[in-house]
Amino acid sequence: MSTVYFPEVPEPIRYEGPDSKNPLAFRHYNPDEVVEGQSMKDLFRFAVAYWHTFRGTGSDPFGPGTAQRPWEDGTDSVEMDLKRVDVAFEFMQKLGAPFYCFHDRDVSGAGANLKETNARFDQVAAKLKEKQGETGINLLWGTANLFSHPRYMHGAATSPQAGVFAHAAAQVKKAIEVTQELGGENYVFWGGREGYFNLYNTDMQRELDHLARFMHMAADYADEIGFKGQFLFEPKPKEPTKHQYDFDVAACMNFLRINGLQDRVKMNIEANHATLAGHSMMHELEYARIQNALGSVDANTGDALLGWDTDQFPTDYYLTTQCMLVILEYGGLAPGGLNFDAKVRRESFEPIDLFHAHIGGMDAFAKGAKVAAAIRKDGVLNDFVKERYASYDDGLGAKIEAGEATFADCEAWVTEHGEPTIASGRQELLENIVNRYI
Amino acid sequence: MSTVYFPEVPEPIRYEGPDSKNPLAFRHYNPDEVVEGQSMKDLFRFAVAYWHTFRGTGSDPFGPGTAQRPWEDGTDSVEMDLKRVDVAFEFMQKLGAPFYCFHDRDVSGAGANLKETNARFDQVAAKLKEKQGETGINLLWGTANLFSHPRYMHGAATSPQAGVFAHAAAQVKKAIEVTQELGGENYVFWGGREGYFNLYNTDMQRELDHLARFMHMAADYADEIGFKGQFLFEPKPKEPTKHQYDFDVAACMNFLRINGLQDRVKMNIEANHATLAGHSMMHELEYARIQNALGSVDANTGDALLGWDTDQFPTDYYLTTQCMLVILEYGGLAPGGLNFDAKVRRESFEPIDLFHAHIGGMDAFAKGAKVAAAIRKDGVLNDFVKERYASYDDGLGAKIEAGEATFADCEAWVTEHGEPTIASGRQELLENIVNRYI
Amino acid sequence: MSTVYFPEVPEPIRYEGPDSKNPLAFRHYNPDEVVEGQSMKDLFRFAVAYWHTFRGTGSDPFGPGTAQRPWEDGTDSVEMDLKRVDVAFEFMQKLGAPFYCFHDRDVSGAGANLKETNARFDQVAAKLKEKQGETGINLLWGTANLFSHPRYMHGAATSPQAGVFAHAAAQVKKAIEVTQELGGENYVFWGGREGYFNLYNTDMQRELDHLARFMHMAADYADEIGFKGQFLFEPKPKEPTKHQYDFDVAACMNFLRINGLQDRVKMNIEANHATLAGHSMMHELEYARIQNALGSVDANTGDALLGWDTDQFPTDYYLTTQCMLVILEYGGLAPGGLNFDAKVRRESFEPIDLFHAHIGGMDAFAKGAKVAAAIRKDGVLNDFVKERYASYDDGLGAKIEAGEATFADCEAWVTEHGEPTIASGRQELLENIVNRYI
Amino acid sequence: MSTVYFPEVPEPIRYEGPDSKNPLAFRHYNPDEVVEGQSMKDLFRFAVAYWHTFRGTGSDPFGPGTAQRPWEDGTDSVEMDLKRVDVAFEFMQKLGAPFYCFHDRDVSGAGANLKETNARFDQVAAKLKEKQGETGINLLWGTANLFSHPRYMHGAATSPQAGVFAHAAAQVKKAIEVTQELGGENYVFWGGREGYFNLYNTDMQRELDHLARFMHMAADYADEIGFKGQFLFEPKPKEPTKHQYDFDVAACMNFLRINGLQDRVKMNIEANHATLAGHSMMHELEYARIQNALGSVDANTGDALLGWDTDQFPTDYYLTTQCMLVILEYGGLAPGGLNFDAKVRRESFEPIDLFHAHIGGMDAFAKGAKVAAAIRKDGVLNDFVKERYASYDDGLGAKIEAGEATFADCEAWVTEHGEPTIASGRQELLENIVNRYI
Repeated sequence: MSTVYFPEVPEPIRYEGPDSKNPLAFRHYNPDEVVEGQSMKDLFRFAVAYWHTFRGTGSDPFGPGTAQRPWEDGTDSVEMDLKRVDVAFEFMQKLGAPFYCFHDRDVSGAGANLKETNARFDQVAAKLKEKQGETGINLLWGTANLFSHPRYMHGAATSPQAGVFAHAAAQVKKAIEVTQELGGENYVFWGGREGYFNLYNTDMQRELDHLARFMHMAADYADEIGFKGQFLFEPKPKEPTKHQYDFDVAACMNFLRINGLQDRVKMNIEANHATLAGHSMMHELEYARIQNALGSVDANTGDALLGWDTDQFPTDYYLTTQCMLVILEYGGLAPGGLNFDAKVRRESFEPIDLFHAHIGGMDAFAKGAKVAAAIRKDGVLNDFVKERYASYDDGLGAKIEAGEATFADCEAWVTEHGEPTIASGRQELLENIVNRYI
Repeated sequence: MSTVYFPEVPEPIRYEGPDSKNPLAFRHYNPDEVVEGQSMKDLFRFAVAYWHTFRGTGSDPFGPGTAQRPWEDGTDSVEMDLKRVDVAFEFMQKLGAPFYCFHDRDVSGAGANLKETNARFDQVAAKLKEKQGETGINLLWGTANLFSHPRYMHGAATSPQAGVFAHAAAQVKKAIEVTQELGGENYVFWGGREGYFNLYNTDMQRELDHLARFMHMAADYADEIGFKGQFLFEPKPKEPTKHQYDFDVAACMNFLRINGLQDRVKMNIEANHATLAGHSMMHELEYARIQNALGSVDANTGDALLGWDTDQFPTDYYLTTQCMLVILEYGGLAPGGLNFDAKVRRESFEPIDLFHAHIGGMDAFAKGAKVAAAIRKDGVLNDFVKERYASYDDGLGAKIEAGEATFADCEAWVTEHGEPTIASGRQELLENIVNRYI
Repeated sequence: MSTVYFPEVPEPIRYEGPDSKNPLAFRHYNPDEVVEGQSMKDLFRFAVAYWHTFRGTGSDPFGPGTAQRPWEDGTDSVEMDLKRVDVAFEFMQKLGAPFYCFHDRDVSGAGANLKETNARFDQVAAKLKEKQGETGINLLWGTANLFSHPRYMHGAATSPQAGVFAHAAAQVKKAIEVTQELGGENYVFWGGREGYFNLYNTDMQRELDHLARFMHMAADYADEIGFKGQFLFEPKPKEPTKHQYDFDVAACMNFLRINGLQDRVKMNIEANHATLAGHSMMHELEYARIQNALGSVDANTGDALLGWDTDQFPTDYYLTTQCMLVILEYGGLAPGGLNFDAKVRRESFEPIDLFHAHIGGMDAFAKGAKVAAAIRKDGVLNDFVKERYASYDDGLGAKIEAGEATFADCEAWVTEHGEPTIASGRQELLENIVNRYI
Repeated sequence: MSTVYFPEVPEPIRYEGPDSKNPLAFRHYNPDEVVEGQSMKDLFRFAVAYWHTFRGTGSDPFGPGTAQRPWEDGTDSVEMDLKRVDVAFEFMQKLGAPFYCFHDRDVSGAGANLKETNARFDQVAAKLKEKQGETGINLLWGTANLFSHPRYMHGAATSPQAGVFAHAAAQVKKAIEVTQELGGENYVFWGGREGYFNLYNTDMQRELDHLARFMHMAADYADEIGFKGQFLFEPKPKEPTKHQYDFDVAACMNFLRINGLQDRVKMNIEANHATLAGHSMMHELEYARIQNALGSVDANTGDALLGWDTDQFPTDYYLTTQCMLVILEYGGLAPGGLNFDAKVRRESFEPIDLFHAHIGGMDAFAKGAKVAAAIRKDGVLNDFVKERYASYDDGLGAKIEAGEATFADCEAWVTEHGEPTIASGRQELLENIVNRYI
């Protein structure tokens, strides 16, 4: 009989409806409930982040870890890697999460050299595959940790040392192979330190060229081995570097377009990164959506009053409603999903806090989806917007949209019509309407 | 004999060298001094911003204007427009600024309808042209004010009302014509309200498509009338809207690339806008430079502790040195220039404060240019950077840059070579070295 | 028969319950509903801000006003002042707001000199008093506008010119008299420009001393004339000045304590100002509450991504819940209240938008009060907090709180007991619990 | 013969004058040069921060340490503690720093219990004392690390667990004893986690009361043992907690005044903390100065575009000039000093980078002092300020300052004099003047 790691959660979390006071039940997330034609399970494709949930210690720049994880033996051994797979799958099964995500070094430690590191990774991957088979929990995406090892201090693909680029390439090569082996549906690029600390010592052009070469090499290798997963690029403005090249969706998309990668790579958008870049999460999602570049979501939240990445679990209904308004318009995220790139607070150090945190995030998104679907069903926002732009549906507006109007045509219109009628933007009314659904 | 508007400045500002204590002299800006093969006059191409310097009143959201401008008679008349041209050229001559910039409505007020407005504009333009001829002061760029009139409350090219788009088009048509007539070397797009206040009422896709149509129509019209000036797009992240589509250089360039405008439109980069977007000014300049998109500069500064556009005159030697490091690398800005999009503080309400402000800005850039040129001459940063990336000059690095290396090659390199040697970034040393030159 | 200014709102706004889709009804605010022993009307003491609602034009730094206010005739006349009183009271009656607030110059314009200005103020005040009598709507607080007139460019009580101090004093003297005449329950100090733009030209010590003198003179004058209203001091970190002396509650309270005013003046706390200072609104309220200094509330909200005062109407249920958790703990705000220091967006330019905005704000606070009361009734937060600090209820903890423990006692405790048991902070669980009530 | 830890720096750093290109020389800091009657050595009282310089590893939230410190053997042993003392004193002697600062756990690791921990501390302290005697380098201040141990996760004096308070008290008791033993001139309170992460689980009043009790107990103990050093309280707005109680100088001083500690505890002000709180460093220094509360300075700088504590070495001449303008006005900092609470960048991982960093910081302050002294000698700012407030030197202004004017007097003045004359603030001119001295 196998060890139980979370005895305080004897059974899988169930849906008990909005009135439940059971903190270990869902009040909104009902995997089988259908929202706009998809079950919640298929709509959200919730994923657990291996790094935060199974490797997070609660350390911060002012102190070491606080997390109590009774199963940890303190070793960096393959045995511990393997035991942790059991922990993870017990957690995810009890939680009811259909997916997980990892960096290579989350699931498997480094060996003395690349060969040994890869062998250990293979050993752990075999167990992950076995547990996936047993449980039906799948890999949403894989990635490689290109930021923790000191060799990556100046960046990975953008390091001034070609040998560091080589290490990163070898690591990503393997990570893509393992992601393929585990049926991962996406592969994420987030170098972590692909940026700079100081422009006095930086050749920005050369670094960006190297980053583009790196992605092309990855795409070529995926083609070579037949990996069909979607590639994702994750924006983040700053931290750990002073300035990251993947600042926001605009910077990422501009980079991809410059380098002919815009059809191959989509966006993995994180809420906390969006706000640190000065955008609302809804902005980043919508801006990616209209470029057909919305790939996947890192579902978390920051603290609007703090200037660093707090990676909190998303519990704000306004945030989740706004996310779901865009995601429902996009028809869902598959092959992407909603990955909880979020960590329990350092002071929430018990295993049970991991459950509270994920339950809260899943419920908040389920609530947001129900609110967004109701708003969409009633058309209260969409009808307003459609009407607001109606002047472009015919006449001069239609000609402009069709590319058939010139400045002279516009001037003629003004001479003939004078001032147009302007309508109120009704922001306050619309905010009240959204509140009506929350 | 003509009226004198600035009697407190009896003569043109002269260069008196670094030890001068005369507040109405330049200590660093010597128009004839040669920096990297160009005279300072040709290198900087300083421009005075008509709106701030001749139309600014010192009003802010908490109070009306404070500026004492004895020549203003309080009327919105063509006579006042024309008198103000005299004021402006006296100021610019005494200051020694070779260029100026304007929005259409800065130089000339609106009439009862488009026809009357344009006629008034023509009348003022004729006088501007005459004064240009007399003084040798030229128009760096023109633009249109598409944000003050209430019709533009929801945007101009991105307004939901096609009739507003038409007004904006008619206005820009005329502004380009006048810019051409005055020999303006550039035309700037800054809609001012091309963004949104709220996503609940916004169709972002449609708005961005309209903005692209607008720029194409402008470019087509320029071709039609033979306007050869450079088009510029000015980034700004927010204010007056909650979120502007021209957020930063990345957002602007991504927009231009999506719409096939990247070869036709370059960037007009403002320091205060850069920092409000979370970037250093040096970052925005360098990022534009490597895309060959650095068109012109709005030379000002913000307050790093305030979250709105303060448009202060740039006096920080670190800022000007960093700007000039990039601009000298670019070979100068022509046909762009350094436009002081800056205003005296509301409490600096006397005409003489306008001189102090511009003198300070010009001197700060002159000092920055001398520092940057010395740093470049000694190679103290460039040599460091060159050496730092030397591993890409041959071997695997050169193969990577040439697009000839694969992930497998990289993996083989790692197997053979193991860990590469990493060098210190030496940020502290480099900061000390820059200080050595200031 | 009197003129109707808001014909689009034929009847007073009614409470129709949570399911109402009528945008001109309350869904949560039911003035007679009792929350913790007080009617909603008495608990909130909602006030309309005369400046935003009746004097706001929608101007911003990039354009003039947009607001359509058909009753405005464009003159700065006492007739217009008097007509506007009718507008205001019709609005407030239809809205059902029991209070209003004003600056002197909101209700009554300036004359050629102090005497004329005061006479005009008296004339308007007489009408305000009459309408108060007719309607039962009362003055929550009065204040003086010490920031719009150019004489106040450098501050009012903190101006370097003693003559400006005198003007401010004369103005506040009259404003207190009128506040008294109208039965105003509070008088607010917010100089607006009591701060600095630059430390190079500022004598901070002298300015702060002058501000303290000013408040003492106001208090003395109130005593002299028998004004019994509560004095309030309003924190704001910046804008219009670069740095205001009344930065936040801490800066205000420190100032009051230095100058012996802490028992005479309480805090008027604004949500948007709180966040601009880096605090949550809940923090500022709670921090004032525990100093027994919570006087009144300016109920609005900022945009967490913008760095200036947006003064939006508060519609976020989390914000209103957090406010009401503190306010209920305080037993309500009387003689203070909840003043909507908030303005409709520049693009919401129709009179009806004023109704939507206030209805939304009132409903959001009513919802927040119901949520907070339920949380408090169930004890779900309070019980947790009480238990969390239980170690201070006896033993060493109680001795510490009683001031009877020394460092040596503590050292002895450690030697005897070793490590204490620490409990999880449970932030995620608590956030989920709050969501349960929203 | 003793081991040499910094062989790359064969001799003590010397002053070589402004033209030196030797990166291991001072260009501005000449310890014997006299500035306003004090030698630079006595004016600055530069201190090296033991934690950053000798314990910093370069770890960040995304990766472990990178620092190469050949003398470290990787053990947490008293032998390593003792060897590190040799390293530190060699470094400080070669650098020419007259002071150092430490937390207890920087210099000496923890034992199995308090007794063992203290014994180890005593052993290391004995060696520190010996080296102090040998070198003449003294302890500027000591403090206790109350934030790294997991027991302090919820705070130390503000922990909800009284047992944690006891541990903190025992630790501070010992830290004061050792500071006294080493002749330390100050003792600093910075709890590190004295704040909260969430208000839902926090009793702010109780926590602040406990913090006040803690300081009183410390002061009582100091009196008991005859420790004459100055107590310092260090403001920081956030990080590691979401909100620290010691937010800024205002919050700290308000706390001290509430609890009757304002005469016993002064401020230790850090530049990076000032800007994170929304203040310029010059503001915080000046605001403390006028309260006679300026105790000591943590000399570093943040990055204005980043929202976390970067603790960079201060190299900006504007920053150092502004600091020195206030410090010279205060007559110097003794018994406080300028402590480099700053760390080399993670990418500056070699021992030599520690020298570059400190040399740059010392030079920048020396340059700032020379600039500030010249500005003060010429009176260019002070004369302007004196003249600006001249209206308070006699007449009504003098009466106001003397507390003899009433509102009625002011009103009478206005009636008699009408509008006062306002002068320009001349910010631009003053900025140019400061540039003249840099």
